[in-house]
Amino acid sequence: MSKVRVAAFSISIDGFGAGPRQDLNNPLGVRGLELHSWFFSTDIFKKMHGTGEGEKGVDNNFAAQSFENVGAWILGRNMFGPVRGDWVLQPEANSWKGWWGDSPPYHVPVFVLTHHARPPLPMAGGTTFYFVTDGIESASRQAKEAAKGKDVRIGGGVSVIRQYLTANLIDEMHLALSPVLLGEGEHLFSGINLHQLGFAPDKIVRGENATHVLIKK
Amino acid sequence: MSKVRVAAFSISIDGFGAGPRQDLNNPLGVRGLELHSWFFSTDIFKKMHGTGEGEKGVDNNFAAQSFENVGAWILGRNMFGPVRGDWVLQPEANSWKGWWGDSPPYHVPVFVLTHHARPPLPMAGGTTFYFVTDGIESASRQAKEAAKGKDVRIGGGVSVIRQYLTANLIDEMHLALSPVLLGEGEHLFSGINLHQLGFAPDKIVRGENATHVLIKK
Repeated sequence: MSKVRVAAFSISIDGFGAGPRQDLNNPLGVRGLELHSWFFSTDIFKKMHGTGEGEKGVDNNFAAQSFENVGAWILGRNMFGPVRGDWVLQPEANSWKGWWGDSPPYHVPVFVLTHHARPPLPMAGGTTFYFVTDGIESASRQAKEAAKGKDVRIGGGVSVIRQYLTANLIDEMHLALSPVLLGEGEHLFSGINLHQLGFAPDKIVRGENATHVLIKK
Repeated sequence: MSKVRVAAFSISIDGFGAGPRQDLNNPLGVRGLELHSWFFSTDIFKKMHGTGEGEKGVDNNFAAQSFENVGAWILGRNMFGPVRGDWVLQPEANSWKGWWGDSPPYHVPVFVLTHHARPPLPMAGGTTFYFVTDGIESASRQAKEAAKGKDVRIGGGVSVIRQYLTANLIDEMHLALSPVLLGEGEHLFSGINLHQLGFAPDKIVRGENATHVLIKK
């Protein structure tokens, strides 16, 4: 059955999914990149970026699974880019096409949550960015329809996942616990009662550079 | 060198060290016992309680290490017992000698933080409970002296560990991440910046029933 899921989402030992003070130089917040070291070492990541071979063990399997059977994505606007405010009024904003170059690694429809309308943006390789201005439930409906029976992956960031959790629209989550203490930043679960939402642990697996935590309903 | 450490302290995936609504029936809060399943399965726990043999793998090694080279303990009063308020005015309070029977598993001096004075309580097997009324720093000093060069173990609960962390009096922590989502309860790290306090990850090891997370300065 089609699921709405979070996958390969990295958090620190102390529960942060991004560092503090996000800006152009720190799109994941200060020290946020450290959370993703495990992913950068995987074969699947290196192949995507044409940077040779990577680690092919447990971490790589989880990274691969995170892309399998995904029919559509949902991203927050900050994950799409550093632009804030209206697209049209800022010439440089309207030319922004995501962090990923001409052929983004999605290859399916991607729904970007934003307060500012923008026409759909078709890219090479099957990715089209759709800009959704009428809220998370609408994005979820559109993504499910576009996914045609496959899963919808909520890419993040933290704020988007928290909104979907609070609305109880997520079926399962795969978190990659990185050996990092951020101390501050965006906490993924603070104030959210996962037990009450119906989540239970599924499994915990130690990978080469991260510990994989799966929770589902 | 002598260290002040937290060891074998169990937390849930969502970061809680105890459940909510602690009382006589739920000394660890609602569902708090679930956090400790990994420990109850170990050989060291079963031997202590004369309930046969237990698991002798990774979890058991970490449980054993948590007791090694410990010269004194510090406990919050709630970990010592369910009694609240003055000891002397409550006849049943003054007869409370801890949760552990006549021969507690400490075998060294144990300093119990409380607002209410009570004479030291020597027990069988080398344990003596000392009741400290002048604060955590005093307890730390007394415990270090009593430990005679060995480590001081902060037993808990959550509130006591948080107080010692905030005062930056802890050198290392071994946490046992249990496959449990509590959803609510006493959060161990919320609002505490471990990075700023100087902690860094040391290692993460998957045991049979828990994942062991070591952080140190």
